[in-house]
Amino acid sequence: MNAARAFQMEERYFDDLKVGDRFCSEPLEVDEKELIEFAHKFDPQMFHLDRKSAERTIFKGLIASGWHTAAMTMRLFVQTLNFAEGAIGLGVDELRWPNAVRPGDALKVETEIVDLRPSRSKPTYGIIRLRNVTTNQRGEIVQTMTASAMAPRRR
Amino acid sequence: MNAARAFQMEERYFDDLKVGDRFCSEPLEVDEKELIEFAHKFDPQMFHLDRKSAERTIFKGLIASGWHTAAMTMRLFVQTLNFAEGAIGLGVDELRWPNAVRPGDALKVETEIVDLRPSRSKPTYGIIRLRNVTTNQRGEIVQTMTASAMAPRRR
Repeated sequence: MNAARAFQMEERYFDDLKVGDRFCSEPLEVDEKELIEFAHKFDPQMFHLDRKSAERTIFKGLIASGWHTAAMTMRLFVQTLNFAEGAIGLGVDELRWPNAVRPGDALKVETEIVDLRPSRSKPTYGIIRLRNVTTNQRGEIVQTMTASAMAPRRR
Repeated sequence: MNAARAFQMEERYFDDLKVGDRFCSEPLEVDEKELIEFAHKFDPQMFHLDRKSAERTIFKGLIASGWHTAAMTMRLFVQTLNFAEGAIGLGVDELRWPNAVRPGDALKVETEIVDLRPSRSKPTYGIIRLRNVTTNQRGEIVQTMTASAMAPRRR
């Protein structure tokens, strides 16, 4: 295990962050079976459900639900930041899907800390404003968003 | 099958909508096993993963990932609106989770059509601006969002 990885696995608190900090996740491969399974459960539309019907759509093939991309992005974000006691999502702004995600793509998430402030109502927490950019193996942006999350302070 | 349900199952096009139209989904029950499964795949944090660890968090019990709530909302939206050839998500703004979703909750989605305009770049499509409000069985709001989607026009 190298030093970067050991650092990544430490539990993180609000107080460990500085505005401008950047974090880059490991890659996650988009599995066709899981893409289809997600669609059946949550987004049963032609371009997500099976190869054959997806061929006839504007996308000319199977693409992931934007909500699946958002969920995979959360997975990578949670793994990379590894907040002690977890990060509580408060809201998301400007969630965009500029390019389609297809089976076999390898997604990575880059997180930038945009703003930090103590919580007024919960003194043991801080509020983090962050920007997540999700890219594929060709460096194309497949999702962008700005989010606010609450994370615990060191006591 | 009653008339309302038969109507609901017709395929809908962009041209069938008017600004101010409202649609209400059927209820969907939040299953504890699925809540935990979603968390293991996409949002592995204490308050989502298992009852015992969730008891010790600020939520005092298991809650659904916000992304799971968003995915369930999509499911209900897709079922209710039932667009011919599907609705293509362009982006989401002001996604908020004002109250926690817990196992056994029954979620419903109300959709309001906020704006409609033909697509400039794709003449066979229209752009829909809509607001989705997700509530639980007590009428408490668990998610709000504004979204833009592209849907096919009648040819």
